[in-house]
Amino acid sequence: MKSTSTPHGAAPDPASTAVAGTAAVTDGGGPGRRDAEATKAAILRAARHLLARHAHADITLKAVAERAGVSPPLIMKYFGNKETLFARVMSFEEDAAVLLDAPLADLGPHMVRHVLVSQSERGADPLLRIVFAPLQGTQGDTLRANFRTQVSDRLALRLDGPDAGLRAELAVGMLLGLGVMYGIARGGELRAAPLDAVVERYAPAVQAYLTP
Amino acid sequence: MKSTSTPHGAAPDPASTAVAGTAAVTDGGGPGRRDAEATKAAILRAARHLLARHAHADITLKAVAERAGVSPPLIMKYFGNKETLFARVMSFEEDAAVLLDAPLADLGPHMVRHVLVSQSERGADPLLRIVFAPLQGTQGDTLRANFRTQVSDRLALRLDGPDAGLRAELAVGMLLGLGVMYGIARGGELRAAPLDAVVERYAPAVQAYLTP
Repeated sequence: MKSTSTPHGAAPDPASTAVAGTAAVTDGGGPGRRDAEATKAAILRAARHLLARHAHADITLKAVAERAGVSPPLIMKYFGNKETLFARVMSFEEDAAVLLDAPLADLGPHMVRHVLVSQSERGADPLLRIVFAPLQGTQGDTLRANFRTQVSDRLALRLDGPDAGLRAELAVGMLLGLGVMYGIARGGELRAAPLDAVVERYAPAVQAYLTP
Repeated sequence: MKSTSTPHGAAPDPASTAVAGTAAVTDGGGPGRRDAEATKAAILRAARHLLARHAHADITLKAVAERAGVSPPLIMKYFGNKETLFARVMSFEEDAAVLLDAPLADLGPHMVRHVLVSQSERGADPLLRIVFAPLQGTQGDTLRANFRTQVSDRLALRLDGPDAGLRAELAVGMLLGLGVMYGIARGGELRAAPLDAVVERYAPAVQAYLTP
């Protein structure tokens, strides 16, 4: 019983950002381009933060702008309007591409490590915003449909053998559980443990669904 | 890819109740006693439903009463006031007692089965309301503290060997992930699969943390 262990990880304010999703990846552009990407990422983080706490209908562009420290017109410049911004936030497409970017034989450890690194280094999680679907009414159904087609089904397509769909859902379920325990329940033991040790303990069960 | 499979399970409106927690267990009392227990269970379900969608501070006893189909004074008769009602809803004590009620050698399958039966038969989950902690501000910290002491730490106390605390958190994480995939993401394959088959596929990984 070492529940008093202090959390590690550099994530600022994990309560606010643990479900914010991965930030935009910077590219080889110049400083201006990187600033724009950083600003876009801040806007997405702000939108995700609010979406974990308020129904979509109650969130204004102004609230997103205030939280991101930018002006509403800048959000419109980058993302169009509120609907297109939230369509982007409710999509798992970009996060799934990174999450699933490994050969099948090594995909379990890759996914577990990606969840842990996202949580501990960026206070983000590639999948966890699905848990706020109940808060979002009909938009929650959009979130669920995206999750299915962009994450579970996409993983299932890569699996051989029987029950690929079920195996994919159980593997994804394990990743979600790890994210909940790390980012929401904030398990003190998990947050204090060396990342490699957690990967070693958790990934084999995930991999067993992928290559049984 | 059989993502069009229809869900099974008798749970009405899983979107509303999937995180509502287990209903009160009826005892050997007469019909009046059973009615009272059913009413109390309905009140707790209503409170849990609202807590998944609104900040604690924004929920009124009147709203709970309306959703439960009872009068506010009846809630006060059974639970005292809003604070004592929500203290009860934010406690995992009763749910953990049922969840952990099996010998250690069989606890993994027991816990996985309990989550699946709760979800599929009652549209409830013993643990899943922890995921709404971010919505609850400082009350979310109460929820997290309860979760740690009443669930993770309580399980860890039963485990032998090294890293009992970490192993308990990872086992509980897997249960949370199963609940998220079933009750929130509503994985079609998982919901369509025979319960025994899911227990057989999922429980060994949980058990491996308990008796490695």
